[in-house]
Amino acid sequence: MTVVELEELLEQLAPAALKLGNDPIGRCIGSPRTTIKKIGVALDATVAVISQCVDQGINVLVTHHPLIYSPLSRLDQTSGFPESAVVAAVKADITVLSAHTNWDCASGGINDVLAEILELTNCYPIEPTLGTQGARTGIGRVGRLRSPMMESDFLSLVEERLKVSVRCSERRNRMIKTIAVCGGAGEGLYGDVKEHADVYVTSDIRHHMFAAAYGENCTLWDAGHRETEIPGTKHLGALLSQHLDIPVVWIDEPGV
Amino acid sequence: MTVVELEELLEQLAPAALKLGNDPIGRCIGSPRTTIKKIGVALDATVAVISQCVDQGINVLVTHHPLIYSPLSRLDQTSGFPESAVVAAVKADITVLSAHTNWDCASGGINDVLAEILELTNCYPIEPTLGTQGARTGIGRVGRLRSPMMESDFLSLVEERLKVSVRCSERRNRMIKTIAVCGGAGEGLYGDVKEHADVYVTSDIRHHMFAAAYGENCTLWDAGHRETEIPGTKHLGALLSQHLDIPVVWIDEPGV
Amino acid sequence: MTVVELEELLEQLAPAALKLGNDPIGRCIGSPRTTIKKIGVALDATVAVISQCVDQGINVLVTHHPLIYSPLSRLDQTSGFPESAVVAAVKADITVLSAHTNWDCASGGINDVLAEILELTNCYPIEPTLGTQGARTGIGRVGRLRSPMMESDFLSLVEERLKVSVRCSERRNRMIKTIAVCGGAGEGLYGDVKEHADVYVTSDIRHHMFAAAYGENCTLWDAGHRETEIPGTKHLGALLSQHLDIPVVWIDEPGV
Amino acid sequence: MTVVELEELLEQLAPAALKLGNDPIGRCIGSPRTTIKKIGVALDATVAVISQCVDQGINVLVTHHPLIYSPLSRLDQTSGFPESAVVAAVKADITVLSAHTNWDCASGGINDVLAEILELTNCYPIEPTLGTQGARTGIGRVGRLRSPMMESDFLSLVEERLKVSVRCSERRNRMIKTIAVCGGAGEGLYGDVKEHADVYVTSDIRHHMFAAAYGENCTLWDAGHRETEIPGTKHLGALLSQHLDIPVVWIDEPGV
Amino acid sequence: MTVVELEELLEQLAPAALKLGNDPIGRCIGSPRTTIKKIGVALDATVAVISQCVDQGINVLVTHHPLIYSPLSRLDQTSGFPESAVVAAVKADITVLSAHTNWDCASGGINDVLAEILELTNCYPIEPTLGTQGARTGIGRVGRLRSPMMESDFLSLVEERLKVSVRCSERRNRMIKTIAVCGGAGEGLYGDVKEHADVYVTSDIRHHMFAAAYGENCTLWDAGHRETEIPGTKHLGALLSQHLDIPVVWIDEPGV
Amino acid sequence: MTVVELEELLEQLAPAALKLGNDPIGRCIGSPRTTIKKIGVALDATVAVISQCVDQGINVLVTHHPLIYSPLSRLDQTSGFPESAVVAAVKADITVLSAHTNWDCASGGINDVLAEILELTNCYPIEPTLGTQGARTGIGRVGRLRSPMMESDFLSLVEERLKVSVRCSERRNRMIKTIAVCGGAGEGLYGDVKEHADVYVTSDIRHHMFAAAYGENCTLWDAGHRETEIPGTKHLGALLSQHLDIPVVWIDEPGV
Repeated sequence: MTVVELEELLEQLAPAALKLGNDPIGRCIGSPRTTIKKIGVALDATVAVISQCVDQGINVLVTHHPLIYSPLSRLDQTSGFPESAVVAAVKADITVLSAHTNWDCASGGINDVLAEILELTNCYPIEPTLGTQGARTGIGRVGRLRSPMMESDFLSLVEERLKVSVRCSERRNRMIKTIAVCGGAGEGLYGDVKEHADVYVTSDIRHHMFAAAYGENCTLWDAGHRETEIPGTKHLGALLSQHLDIPVVWIDEPGV
Repeated sequence: MTVVELEELLEQLAPAALKLGNDPIGRCIGSPRTTIKKIGVALDATVAVISQCVDQGINVLVTHHPLIYSPLSRLDQTSGFPESAVVAAVKADITVLSAHTNWDCASGGINDVLAEILELTNCYPIEPTLGTQGARTGIGRVGRLRSPMMESDFLSLVEERLKVSVRCSERRNRMIKTIAVCGGAGEGLYGDVKEHADVYVTSDIRHHMFAAAYGENCTLWDAGHRETEIPGTKHLGALLSQHLDIPVVWIDEPGV
Repeated sequence: MTVVELEELLEQLAPAALKLGNDPIGRCIGSPRTTIKKIGVALDATVAVISQCVDQGINVLVTHHPLIYSPLSRLDQTSGFPESAVVAAVKADITVLSAHTNWDCASGGINDVLAEILELTNCYPIEPTLGTQGARTGIGRVGRLRSPMMESDFLSLVEERLKVSVRCSERRNRMIKTIAVCGGAGEGLYGDVKEHADVYVTSDIRHHMFAAAYGENCTLWDAGHRETEIPGTKHLGALLSQHLDIPVVWIDEPGV
Repeated sequence: MTVVELEELLEQLAPAALKLGNDPIGRCIGSPRTTIKKIGVALDATVAVISQCVDQGINVLVTHHPLIYSPLSRLDQTSGFPESAVVAAVKADITVLSAHTNWDCASGGINDVLAEILELTNCYPIEPTLGTQGARTGIGRVGRLRSPMMESDFLSLVEERLKVSVRCSERRNRMIKTIAVCGGAGEGLYGDVKEHADVYVTSDIRHHMFAAAYGENCTLWDAGHRETEIPGTKHLGALLSQHLDIPVVWIDEPGV
Repeated sequence: MTVVELEELLEQLAPAALKLGNDPIGRCIGSPRTTIKKIGVALDATVAVISQCVDQGINVLVTHHPLIYSPLSRLDQTSGFPESAVVAAVKADITVLSAHTNWDCASGGINDVLAEILELTNCYPIEPTLGTQGARTGIGRVGRLRSPMMESDFLSLVEERLKVSVRCSERRNRMIKTIAVCGGAGEGLYGDVKEHADVYVTSDIRHHMFAAAYGENCTLWDAGHRETEIPGTKHLGALLSQHLDIPVVWIDEPGV
Repeated sequence: MTVVELEELLEQLAPAALKLGNDPIGRCIGSPRTTIKKIGVALDATVAVISQCVDQGINVLVTHHPLIYSPLSRLDQTSGFPESAVVAAVKADITVLSAHTNWDCASGGINDVLAEILELTNCYPIEPTLGTQGARTGIGRVGRLRSPMMESDFLSLVEERLKVSVRCSERRNRMIKTIAVCGGAGEGLYGDVKEHADVYVTSDIRHHMFAAAYGENCTLWDAGHRETEIPGTKHLGALLSQHLDIPVVWIDEPGV
């Protein structure tokens, strides 16, 4: 089986048309004609992850985050990420592909997995993909708890399910019903959800956003970038494993 | 004493020429001719902070963060921050000024105060202000520990002094000597400091930066935006109090 | 009755989709939930107009010209228009809305009223709104005199009806039939009308345009910005009064 | 004598370095090697002016306003100004040059002539040319009346000297001392002069500027574009005549 | 017959909608109302070509390349092309029009003529005009040889038919079948054709493109700009002659 | 000896400050700490050149043309130049550096070598490097023949010395004295040299430039990109060999 066939499968699971902006998804290193031996799945194609691929006989790596985010003019393996990882992958003949915002937005992708873990129902996207009214694709999800619960109890549920210590814009004692989630960095969607949700669970929140959210009806929670994206990324690996006769392995990133 | 005189004092402490880019520092709400009754100092001009100003008879508020970051076309007090705070300040006749990146970069400002709390010596700016070679103004600071110490011991020192739980790109057992600091959001300077410092203490670090830093010689630490900036902002209040015969009050922000 | 209901009525009379470019029409100051006591209608939300609103118990002001044309980074009530007027409106709890180029282009709006006063018939827009072929919406109007008349006689008619002294690119003795009009500043449309009309009545003409028009078949007339827009703006007030059970008052601007 | 020598003289009187922005001053039509027979001077190079040049044996025309303001992709003599005038000049072998904002800003240029006619003393530029502190070059002039006079009396003086009916932002009965002037379109400088002058005399004022000026200390007057620029343009002709042994003729523009 | 009728005929042969980007096709000099005496057809409206028009009583010139490619701010007949040619055409009352990329892309245009001369069959455009799938319009052509031949034999055929010495990225001994052609400068399309054609015949190839093409399956040939475009331009002249009762003359350009 | 030392030598011979625009000169692939075994010098880092480096034990390649001209988002070794060459260099551990427009402009660089071969004297740059009046650095050279000669004789000299068949804007029988040269693509400088030189020798001339040059005093010659740059590039190799105790080898590019 060659990389181009894997690309076709990824297109079904996470169609490129769902990506946001100019997100450089897809094949970053390697050729479509490469024969796949073993597939690795990870959040990032760091040097440490590439190194594990080499150790485990993996020659194709599927990551959530694109390896080359800004185009490169130089490749000096000693000047840090991502150059070091690009050189490592090229030298080890490892093909690198990513399914990023297309997998965030896909039906069954990062955000649907996150919503399911947090027991949300009747979910719809925060921002539906253009031209798909009614469909379930788009960035983020807004859903309902099965029954209203105390905000502090839902905080405990999130921390337990995602194994993370959540940072909150404020702590409240009140009943809540509607929850918005966005795996990974979701700061920019707060303005869109604040009228519609009681709590917004996302990550990579910076101070100025927490300051702006204080006093708003919708509480803003940072539940960790890794923690909110790993479940959906692992799920992509599971789907690849189901569809293919090739070993698929999850690779953890130390320290991030 | 009028606002224009306070502006002159701020110009001495935090010269406008030190600001970075188009940072909208200075007077945001109110007139230079207003007579000052009492000064409040805070990190942000949130509605809650404005409300405390009203309660305490404060008519001039000096904040670290500018209130209007993106110019406004509309002012609807019900549509959230910053519009709500702008309307609150206008209606309460509160003049609002900020000393932001000019105070970050100033000699004796945010970063010098932070470096002193963390016991750094021989400090120089990460990026000196253009045209001031040799001077001590510029963004961030790089300094030396009085004597080498274990990275884990310095972590304990930071957590204790700033009263914060630090997030790290990785945990290491090694001796360190050189430390870079940047109060507030300092992600963008990691590339500049990674060759020169063993640890970089800043805040508002997002996942992709932690991922990129893993394996680099320089460990990346997020010690909180509030926690790294409050000492320097309080120090500005203390300086105003020293120079003026007007009461100056620190105002805490709930929940941020 | 709340402001949001007034906004719905304005949307019927002057649909937002008709506006030109990024014209900042609509609500500029205040919240949609405000209860309307009394409505003022004026050309501009100057400080003098806001002051009349306060005197007359008006809490909602509808103007033709938007109050905040360029977004504001600072609000110093002593630094002139529009900052002074924004502060005055905020402090007096006056909601400010405008129907500008959407009302210029609307069927029955500024330009239709102007064409009617000047006794034009068979009118169509100079530039129809995109996607509305055949409809009567768009900027400016081209129409026919009921019967041909001397250009000098039509000049007298315009001066008498609009109570203004018209400035002309040149004075001619000839019979004319087709007239173009554009209330307010219409310099930019001269190129579009010069092949189709004998005279173009508009305002805010600058020298270089008069110089360019000399010798062209179509004479260019400046009949005053106020004079060409007040009839249509007053008509909007009359329509609001017809549709609402709330007092609606016209407010004159001194000196403009 | 050739055109290049005239260009050298114009460079002395109105140095190119004084021009504002990308103002397309200088030679627009024709070659530097042309031998000059007779010089015409006018405000604009309209078709009517070119036609008078032909009638009077003029082969070099110096205008205040540049003929080609926006670069041309097509030259259809039937499609109006400036194409018609460009074709007329090319066909008649008339060289066209202009001294525009360089002559506005020059010492002894448009604005100095205007200030002298209005009897202002101790004049300095509204915006000095960059790098010329102390010098008398730059756009506009601010000067003092020889002794304070009633605003209405100064209005009469302006109307009489410039032979124009002035349009005012408001009419006031007060004593005034400091006057700003800017020949031609000077709307954009109102913000710069309003703190420094009691009256600002310029032209091409549009409604929104009159509306903004109402209530400000500085009254805004529109004294006509032609009327404020013709004196300085005629003066340029007089200077050319003094320096050259070639006939120099003033050409009036009908109707503008 | 007037120019506007010729414009209508050109619109049928080379519809403006087919042009690429902002190509300034169409009438560049002259009016639509001019009566045509005699038509010249040429590649470029150089001064030498205009001069031949004058000699031959031609008052309308149709060229492949637009005369004014970048809009002009000045017209000095002594400063070289295109200014010199614009002045020459204006003075000689010669109307100049061009059919450039619209004629390249048209069915029966530059590229179809070139493909026919080189005996290609089953041709389709390299880049079809947007919105015309299936149609034969668009830039360049890809076609098949009637039967496979040696690359060196096809090189001889091209050199003989176009009377040109071809420059090649490399010389190969192999059988070829599929040929891409693009009359004039076609460097930018190499990336589009290299997967689909054995040889790409175009012109104005610069070194870096030859260097990039070396080793690729598709050999890159520069067969001359004039040589690849003259056949199609002459064919346009022939079509005009067929449709009109006016003499149409081909004008050669010396030296180019 | 390490790459950083070679970089220091290149900085002396071809200072980075001389480069034009954003030309991506310098190290493109590899680390400054690499130990140099053997140096290759070539015009381009094509796959064929990289392959010769591998064969000859070269681990550092100095080229005239930068390898990565436009930053890369993807690296697929099967998708052509430059990606294929980047991957080849990374896999073979070959460091790639270039001295491009800095070497064109340097004293003793590409253009000085070319001028010397063509026996020009009293040379100065076409466009001197900013801030270096009087110095001999800058792009292109203008020089004098030792004594006037026939244009056709100089053509023979150029063809013989550079071993190339020159393409000319026109052929002339006249005496010439002043020659401009620019190794490589120099089309854009024709406007700068046409007043100062009788002949301009450069390369990569496209049709529209030849057409514009016809009839101008300065004849335009295309003497080949390779042919005008190889002498200066070889000379750089000779200088490296003189300064270093490391073997330096010239590598020819087939077919370009």
